[in-house]
Amino acid sequence: MTDYRRLRVALLGAGAVGSQVASLLRQHADELADRAGARLELIGIAVRDVDAPRDVDLPRELLTTDAESLIVGADIVIELMGGIEPARSHLLTAINSGADVVTANKALLATHGPEIFDAADQVGAEVYYEAAAAGAIPIIRPLRDSLAGDRVQRIMGIVNGTTNYILDRMDTEGAEFADVLADAQRLGYAEADPTADVEGYDAAQKAAILASLAFHTTVPLESVHREGITTIDKSMMDAARHAGYVIKLLAVCERLNGGADESISVRVYPALVDRAHPLASVHGANNAVFVQAEAAGNLMFYGAGAGGVQTASAVLGDVVSAARRHIAGGVGVGESTLANLPIVPIGRVTTRYQITLEVDDQPGVLATVAGILSDGRVSIANVEQTVVGEDARTARLVIGTHKALEQDLSETVDRLAASGVVERVVSVLRVEGD
Amino acid sequence: MTDYRRLRVALLGAGAVGSQVASLLRQHADELADRAGARLELIGIAVRDVDAPRDVDLPRELLTTDAESLIVGADIVIELMGGIEPARSHLLTAINSGADVVTANKALLATHGPEIFDAADQVGAEVYYEAAAAGAIPIIRPLRDSLAGDRVQRIMGIVNGTTNYILDRMDTEGAEFADVLADAQRLGYAEADPTADVEGYDAAQKAAILASLAFHTTVPLESVHREGITTIDKSMMDAARHAGYVIKLLAVCERLNGGADESISVRVYPALVDRAHPLASVHGANNAVFVQAEAAGNLMFYGAGAGGVQTASAVLGDVVSAARRHIAGGVGVGESTLANLPIVPIGRVTTRYQITLEVDDQPGVLATVAGILSDGRVSIANVEQTVVGEDARTARLVIGTHKALEQDLSETVDRLAASGVVERVVSVLRVEGD
Repeated sequence: MTDYRRLRVALLGAGAVGSQVASLLRQHADELADRAGARLELIGIAVRDVDAPRDVDLPRELLTTDAESLIVGADIVIELMGGIEPARSHLLTAINSGADVVTANKALLATHGPEIFDAADQVGAEVYYEAAAAGAIPIIRPLRDSLAGDRVQRIMGIVNGTTNYILDRMDTEGAEFADVLADAQRLGYAEADPTADVEGYDAAQKAAILASLAFHTTVPLESVHREGITTIDKSMMDAARHAGYVIKLLAVCERLNGGADESISVRVYPALVDRAHPLASVHGANNAVFVQAEAAGNLMFYGAGAGGVQTASAVLGDVVSAARRHIAGGVGVGESTLANLPIVPIGRVTTRYQITLEVDDQPGVLATVAGILSDGRVSIANVEQTVVGEDARTARLVIGTHKALEQDLSETVDRLAASGVVERVVSVLRVEGD
Repeated sequence: MTDYRRLRVALLGAGAVGSQVASLLRQHADELADRAGARLELIGIAVRDVDAPRDVDLPRELLTTDAESLIVGADIVIELMGGIEPARSHLLTAINSGADVVTANKALLATHGPEIFDAADQVGAEVYYEAAAAGAIPIIRPLRDSLAGDRVQRIMGIVNGTTNYILDRMDTEGAEFADVLADAQRLGYAEADPTADVEGYDAAQKAAILASLAFHTTVPLESVHREGITTIDKSMMDAARHAGYVIKLLAVCERLNGGADESISVRVYPALVDRAHPLASVHGANNAVFVQAEAAGNLMFYGAGAGGVQTASAVLGDVVSAARRHIAGGVGVGESTLANLPIVPIGRVTTRYQITLEVDDQPGVLATVAGILSDGRVSIANVEQTVVGEDARTARLVIGTHKALEQDLSETVDRLAASGVVERVVSVLRVEGD
């Protein structure tokens, strides 16, 4: 066996991901040493309660509640506690005591990323966070390194497994949201409090991280427009299917305009995706990130977006990278200068829309609706009209639009609702993918 | 504008990819400097004939036929000449004169990879080759870095755009191989001499590179089992469709057994892929690499496998990485120790098979066929029998097998052919994807 240099690894957190990381570090110790060029010695695991029951059997002598003491003796610190504090303080301590850090903490990076990256830059340390963006899917290195010589135009990501699981089952089984959610909770695909997933908060954090990398711009979480999937019902799913679409919760990161006016938009919402688009075939709790780049064209990265052992794979990849950097010497170096493009509010974004209305089935109604759309600078691509209701006095209009400005569209829908001929605005959905 | 350090970049070759790289290096000079932390100064382009006509307008004063002089003055050398010599000598000169090198040369790496990587290790240089494995699809960094802490079990790649284009059109249009090939040649998707593509040589080179990375093993090109697609005809396509499959040319890199007997298999052949598998949805000239890893689970990387500007994106990503390494200091470091697993011949591989036979439609024939299969240790999963021919004296048997050893299968098919009851072995196809 090769006589490798030893690197001291501290692990913070022993939850679903942390316990898998600890277990794989010990189980694959020899192979990891061959890959890293250094023996990765797990010197301790900081936990809240050393006596708490755990899925994976961890050596009692490695557990400690004193995270700070553990950190200052480490070459590499792996932060898998989640949440903002004390994770933020621990990462800063680690960086300032000369360690490289690996984290899967998307909430922390989406809110305090610049502070942590700046601290690392100051001392020449490196922050690795492959597991924070799309679980096990390698997307950070492709965006930061492989596409560093290209210009990303747009990212469309299915980055939340819970919501994709729910929407996929609604689509394939014709089930209602509440029923599938209850089932997902029973099966462990959704938390008891599903808010972070179904309201798009988790996806918004990942969108902020992906957009920051793709556009070399600090993207505060507050600048990410966010809508969840709780308004999606069976009838919307059925209508989408009928029109050749599937509804997916998408994280969209987009470069707008060019030249001096260049800006970006970052948004999370349920959108209609053409069934022929590669994202439409992402089933179950899987994730995928579709990237459109100026030179590379269309790329897609697909895999498990969550899960303890899957995420542990991404974490260990980062640990090996950090170890190789220690061996190689030199300072950590990411990109030198940020572009920091302006981030526009949702109102200035253009997409296509599908508007579904219930209207009085009387002569002239379509003309009135078309007039309101036209006045609002919303151009109609296609209309389907069907009679609904037993008395045949109500018609349903499904209107597909050309690309329109969100603000124009939104004001136009308000005017339609107040027009007197529209009984009900059934749904307004954005169409993404072209 | 930031005052960056300058790095001297030499480009060898100004073909489809090289001319795009030269053009993007100049067009995006400021952005590339921001990404790399250094100004990338193109100091010259080595070509065979400075007066040859080119698609992209290159500054006459940068062109030279003296590659060696150009190389010794460079910090980063980009080799896009293709072929073995003089590309190999130039890369070795570059490495030994202290440059980091970027190459898209799959033929060279598949045949002389170890020599080049060893030379780089000796002097602490780095070899970047993202564009050599799957064109614009970032797959090298995911395999080398992101999955460095995991164990790859299997890779199934659609890594040749020309053959995927041909097979996809045969599948969707019901066309014959020769007709689609002629069309592909007319449209520029296939070369005038299509051998490298349709006989699987190009895919075999990429398979050797991917397997070397995934299994930390030197994989000589000769150890890659290779079959092309020229034997695939319309009737096989139709039968595959009827059975719920599509035929794809796959590069399969597989870890066999475990523990002390651990070995790998690397092979390229047309295989039946279930239509529900993500690889089945890879259409046209696109490529995709499906990776099964122990912890990460299933991952897929999808995109354009070829094309001048697409491949240039991968090359420029490597150039930025090389520049960042120059800035950071330190020596190049990859994995420390190779696993160098034994590579087994195709006979020792197990897969499922679909065997199509024409037999005399007489009582007892199925029993005879089943007996021969059973004697040959090939277990039947399902059989479909249909009568063919106007005289109704010939039946067609489509036999799906459980997993069987290739050598057993191959000997069994020979015995079937010689059995007297089998009129013709119509096709034997492997089934991949489970």
